[in-house]
This record gives sequence, structure tokens and C-alpha cells, in this order.
Amino acid sequence: MEAAQILYDTVEVSLAVGPDIQDITAKLTRLVGQSQIENGVLSANTVGSTGSLTTIEFEPGVVADLTAAVDRWAPPGISYAHELAWHDGNGHSHVQAALMGPSISIAIRNCHLRLGTWQQVVVINHDNRARKRPIAVTIVGAVE
Amino acid sequence: MEAAQILYDTVEVSLAVGPDIQDITAKLTRLVGQSQIENGVLSANTVGSTGSLTTIEFEPGVVADLTAAVDRWAPPGISYAHELAWHDGNGHSHVQAALMGPSISIAIRNCHLRLGTWQQVVVINHDNRARKRPIAVTIVGAVE
Amino acid sequence: MEAAQILYDTVEVSLAVGPDIQDITAKLTRLVGQSQIENGVLSANTVGSTGSLTTIEFEPGVVADLTAAVDRWAPPGISYAHELAWHDGNGHSHVQAALMGPSISIAIRNCHLRLGTWQQVVVINHDNRARKRPIAVTIVGAVE
Repeated sequence: MEAAQILYDTVEVSLAVGPDIQDITAKLTRLVGQSQIENGVLSANTVGSTGSLTTIEFEPGVVADLTAAVDRWAPPGISYAHELAWHDGNGHSHVQAALMGPSISIAIRNCHLRLGTWQQVVVINHDNRARKRPIAVTIVGAVE
Repeated sequence: MEAAQILYDTVEVSLAVGPDIQDITAKLTRLVGQSQIENGVLSANTVGSTGSLTTIEFEPGVVADLTAAVDRWAPPGISYAHELAWHDGNGHSHVQAALMGPSISIAIRNCHLRLGTWQQVVVINHDNRARKRPIAVTIVGAVE
Repeated sequence: MEAAQILYDTVEVSLAVGPDIQDITAKLTRLVGQSQIENGVLSANTVGSTGSLTTIEFEPGVVADLTAAVDRWAPPGISYAHELAWHDGNGHSHVQAALMGPSISIAIRNCHLRLGTWQQVVVINHDNRARKRPIAVTIVGAVE
């Protein structure tokens, strides 16, 4: 048992019209290095209700498959009550993001994110326009 | 780097027959204020296997769209093995809640939840009866 | 307010060809006991991009229903770009795992996970072969 320390920061990512999926593992790894935390946990959440976070094997095939799947789960082409009221064309974006979820928690071990070799943290922009998305990152753990 | 402090509490929310979606941001914000934590992270989980947590823009359109979507992803009207065994009519509730997930983590910055302007934390009751749902909340961070 | 302490460990689970769902609550409860943390939060994530974590009522009916549902949300039988490139037959596994999400956070209260009576933490293997999956667990809280 060790006393916990905390470090926090914000990562900003430019994303294209949704669904756009970008790998943020390198950005998070940099924060983990800065934190000097050896063992602990990194929590992150998208700021904004049409973004989400998850992990995937970040290669073009999975990116294409997940892009197609989120549009299948909440298709852009059907009628949404949000659009009837607000006319901003992104009813599906809100439903997709709520489904995927805004946050993740990934362990830190020996100063690295404890992910699989073919597992990356990704942010998804579900909105119907390009967005610069802030992601709030909090690292709690024991310093080496 | 600062030493981390911890505060925990439980929020209770009365929910109608599912899918019912309620905004709990004000309740969580009150706990953040009580904690005196300036920067850190709030983790929350629903207690009970037919509830879930996510974030949405809490306005009637998105609420209606997400309500319709969860019933599309796991429709009440199809056959569920859970119902064949237990006859409580909520097979779909269990599948919906597992899909959406029981927990979220949201950053705290300058004594406030780091959410978008149009982003609220919501609890969803997926059960086929009204439920009073406890939500366990843990705040870890550095005191101002 | 109390000073936060931290404990971390890894749980390993043997899983059959996916979707295979296993209850890990007893393993997590053992770690909570070892941590001597009375109140706080347990964060866990699957290591590997074809696994996921959620909570369910772990009984054969819900297990069968959720198994069927994840295969409905991302069916094994349709075409995936990942498979066209890698020919490993698990395109659906990647999409299913990204949908369900790699991580959860569950509160600890009075030295126990704050779950419902019929709510268990489960790991899901979505891969098309049996896998031994590591789950990284981090416990942050105040010692009794």
C-alpha cells in the first residue's frame, strides 16, 4: 500500500465529420510519463455529448468496421426527435455517443498504460461536423 | 503532483418504468462541492443490474431518441432465456443495462465536473417496473 | 476526507471461444479484502482488444441472452474489413468488444464491492478462440 498522488491534464484532438476514430494512445502515454506515476490508473472522458472513448486494435480494417457498425446501431438516415426540435442534423450522433459511453479507465503499470500489444485507446467523433474535442485526463497512482 | 484525498457518498434516484432516463448532474455537482476537491475524478456506478449510466444532452428530443434506441437494441417483445426461467418479464432490461454499462468516470476541474455545456450525466432505469436506484459515487482528487 | 491509498494487481481468467461470459466478482472481492481499503473505488480493464467488462445478473438465462445479443449487434457471419486484411476470422470480435467497452469502475463500501444483490462483474471474451485474459485491477481508497 502506498499513498496516492494525482496529476490531471487535457488532451485536444482534431476530428473529421463522424464517425471519425482517432488513436490517442501516444498522447496519453506522454501524460503518463510526465506524471512520474509508476502504478495506478488513468481515467479519461470526452468533453461534449457527441464524442466517446473505447479501445480497439487501431488498424484500418477495424476502424472501417467500427465506423460502419456505429452507423448501423444508430443510422444517420432515420427520424430523430432531437432533429425535429433542433434541426442540426445530428440526432444519430447523440444516440451513438451515449451508447459507446464517454469514459474509460486504464491501469498504469511500470510507468506504462496496461494495454494489450494490439490495443489502442481511441476517441470517436460522432457529430455531423468536424470537431476539436477536449479529453479530460486524470492519473491517480503511486510515484516511483 | 499533489496527495490525493477521497470522498464517497450515495445518490438515490426515483425512476419510472424503463427505459426511463433522469439527469443526475445537479446531484453529482452538489457532492463535488461538498468534497472541496478542486481537481480529480468522480467515479459512479449503478447499484443493481438493470440500471446504467452515460452522458447525453439532456433535452426531450435526445431522451426520446435514446429511449427508442435502447428498446431497438434489445426489444421488450422478443424471447429471452431469463424470462423463460424467472417469468419476471425483464429479460430485455438485463441485456440493455449490460450493453450501456454500469459506470462512468468524469474529471473534476476547478471544483466542477468537466463536462460540455450541453452534456449531462444520466441514469437509466431499464427495468419493467419503477425503481429507486442507488448510485455509488467516489471522488478522488486534490483539495484546493 | 481521508488520504487515499492505492493497491494494484492482475486477475487472469480462462475463457472459451466467444462470446464467453465469466463471473469475476469473487476474484475482485478477494483483492478488495487484501487491499484493506474500507471505502474507495475499484477500476478494472481488460488487457487485449477482444475482451470487455460489464455487470449482469450472472444466471444462465441472462448469460444466454447477452451472448445472443452481442452476436446480433455484430454478427460473426457478415463481411468485415479487418478479416479481408488479416484473415483471422474475428472481425466481429473487435467490433463487439469496442461496443461493450474495456473498463468499469465499482465503488468499495465497508470493505465490499458496492453491487446489487443480483449484480456480478463479468468479463466477456469476444474472440473466435479460447483466451486466457489478464484484467488489470487498481483499487484507490481509504484504509480502515
